[in-house]
Amino acid sequence: MSRGFDAAEYKARLARAQAGMQAEGLGAILLTTEPDVRYFTGFLTRFWESPSRPWFVVLPAAGDPVAVIPSIGAALMAGTWIKDIRTWSAPDPVDDGVSLLADALREIGGPVGVPSHLETHLRMPLADFERVKAASRQPFTDDRRIVAGCRAIKSEAEIGKIAEICAIAGRAFHRVGEIAAPGVPLSQVFRDFQRVLLEEGADWVPYLAGGAGPEGYGDVISPATDAPLAVGDVLMLDTGAVRDGYFCDYDRNFAIGRADDAQRAAHARLIEATQAGLDVARPGARASDVWRAMADIVGGGEAAGRLGHGLGLQLTEGLSLTARDHTELRAGMVITLEPGIETAPGRIMVHEENIVITDGAPRALSPLSGPDLRVI
Amino acid sequence: MSRGFDAAEYKARLARAQAGMQAEGLGAILLTTEPDVRYFTGFLTRFWESPSRPWFVVLPAAGDPVAVIPSIGAALMAGTWIKDIRTWSAPDPVDDGVSLLADALREIGGPVGVPSHLETHLRMPLADFERVKAASRQPFTDDRRIVAGCRAIKSEAEIGKIAEICAIAGRAFHRVGEIAAPGVPLSQVFRDFQRVLLEEGADWVPYLAGGAGPEGYGDVISPATDAPLAVGDVLMLDTGAVRDGYFCDYDRNFAIGRADDAQRAAHARLIEATQAGLDVARPGARASDVWRAMADIVGGGEAAGRLGHGLGLQLTEGLSLTARDHTELRAGMVITLEPGIETAPGRIMVHEENIVITDGAPRALSPLSGPDLRVI
Repeated sequence: MSRGFDAAEYKARLARAQAGMQAEGLGAILLTTEPDVRYFTGFLTRFWESPSRPWFVVLPAAGDPVAVIPSIGAALMAGTWIKDIRTWSAPDPVDDGVSLLADALREIGGPVGVPSHLETHLRMPLADFERVKAASRQPFTDDRRIVAGCRAIKSEAEIGKIAEICAIAGRAFHRVGEIAAPGVPLSQVFRDFQRVLLEEGADWVPYLAGGAGPEGYGDVISPATDAPLAVGDVLMLDTGAVRDGYFCDYDRNFAIGRADDAQRAAHARLIEATQAGLDVARPGARASDVWRAMADIVGGGEAAGRLGHGLGLQLTEGLSLTARDHTELRAGMVITLEPGIETAPGRIMVHEENIVITDGAPRALSPLSGPDLRVI
Repeated sequence: MSRGFDAAEYKARLARAQAGMQAEGLGAILLTTEPDVRYFTGFLTRFWESPSRPWFVVLPAAGDPVAVIPSIGAALMAGTWIKDIRTWSAPDPVDDGVSLLADALREIGGPVGVPSHLETHLRMPLADFERVKAASRQPFTDDRRIVAGCRAIKSEAEIGKIAEICAIAGRAFHRVGEIAAPGVPLSQVFRDFQRVLLEEGADWVPYLAGGAGPEGYGDVISPATDAPLAVGDVLMLDTGAVRDGYFCDYDRNFAIGRADDAQRAAHARLIEATQAGLDVARPGARASDVWRAMADIVGGGEAAGRLGHGLGLQLTEGLSLTARDHTELRAGMVITLEPGIETAPGRIMVHEENIVITDGAPRALSPLSGPDLRVI
């Protein structure tokens, strides 16, 4: 599959944002984070791992975006569809892009919307943000959730990217029997599973979580220990791998050597909950409706927590399947269904799939798991 | 090598921060980013890849830190030395930890210092930050660079972690001949090199950059293309791999099949510049002095850009070896020496090593490369 998108894709994204800006009376939107900058420009690099330099893109209410970036990124940005690229030699301890950005904002004109709500942050030094506000002499406000709103609805091209990395992860999960066996430390399984993901076509593996134990696992965010797998354990691997800048985020459970009845029942219940989520995930349903369909099966009420979320340029983005998130589902949204169940005090099992909301039934992007717990 | 640090390490870090807070008259420091939170608590997880939830740690001017975190992290945080852990069910679209954090800050008392200078950002929604400021009724200010100052001087235990991941990368670089050959796409080399790093003991590979071409490469931040390597290319691989939460960051150059005189001369010049940097990197020297020693050899003046930087919990952190950064070197600082040279219009070669500043000559953490360009 070809890399990146054509310019028409980016122009359509910009047009959607500009329609929102005009409706909300914003003169500009200031972008500072990796996914927001990439969404509107196509600027794809792992260099964001370095916090030393800020990167700015300004979306005007009309006309093309302006990139205000460290000169080290000029050549890569010039390879995107962005034409107006202004650079400085960063990091500069005296003026790290502040004057250049303030000039651009003054030229474009405000009010300047900055993504400010749940899940966002401003990726630049706070002190420099205050300097930019003062020097630009423009009013600043939040972005009215315009950027998140654009990103939430995926194009067919984006859905294709997510489907591709989901397929890669599917092939990797199929090979877990090669790397997981009694006596193998969980940390080794983690290392090997990342290797297998790369072999199957992932560009990199930003996220891998999991756990193992006879009654499930303690949580899903801890790093792997060197404790060896044992016969009778349930092993869970949950990956956010990336291909061409788009994430998958789903997991699989495996019984090591043999599965007992409680493990099989818990797994079947998770699949049943996933199916209930699939049945409700239609345009017009609320995130909380999908949550409730799954929570009714796995139990726990609000304590069941988040049972899924949006997915795309980030491992998690946009809506949350919780009791309190009433976001309306719309065709083109890519979400995860992630029911969890308590299997013993302090122990859980979790299952996760990736789907896209369509005008009819949702389409699975991950290869949906059946109710039988796989034994390896 | 054992994982993590004992509680005494964290208590020493906190004591240094608290000495600074008392000197500067701060009542508290608010931490929101992965490396800052991990530095003072030991909370290590890849879950920060998900932007959905904010995480807060408050350092009081006296007494132990307070963690205000999503409940999904409670079990993992309870495994650290932190005792005062306050949780909420995140993400909550109405009150995502705001009240809980404001209460903690009011109890501890301000002024509240927030890291605000170069290289920092606030990892929480801007709108919630304003709510926390209002609800806590405490004065907010910057952190007087106290957190960055603590992190800049590594303990022996930290240096040991960085040395370990440097050794892992060294073994991986030694194996590049297994994966790079004429006809192999650069994207495949990138995938395979990540695999080799994992096989040699990296926990994960957050960063990999590089390039290839007969006269060097165009930049060092672009993702790999599918273009195949050719006889006569110079291949560069630059990795930020992680073991137990600490980064290496260094690169190696390889001639594919054969090296010509220009390539050999450029490589030898880079090693000469690295040696010049090593000769100057002593306590009391300025970052700009080390930069100048290398810039005098590779040329380009200020346009040579940044020729190295601090390293540790992040791929890049702290000082920059630039003409304008006059930070004084101190024993315990871990830095990279990263001279680059223009080999043709728009083409460069770059070399990088990792060292720790000591009271005498710096100690190499990466296995220092000799002047001869390796042919594979």
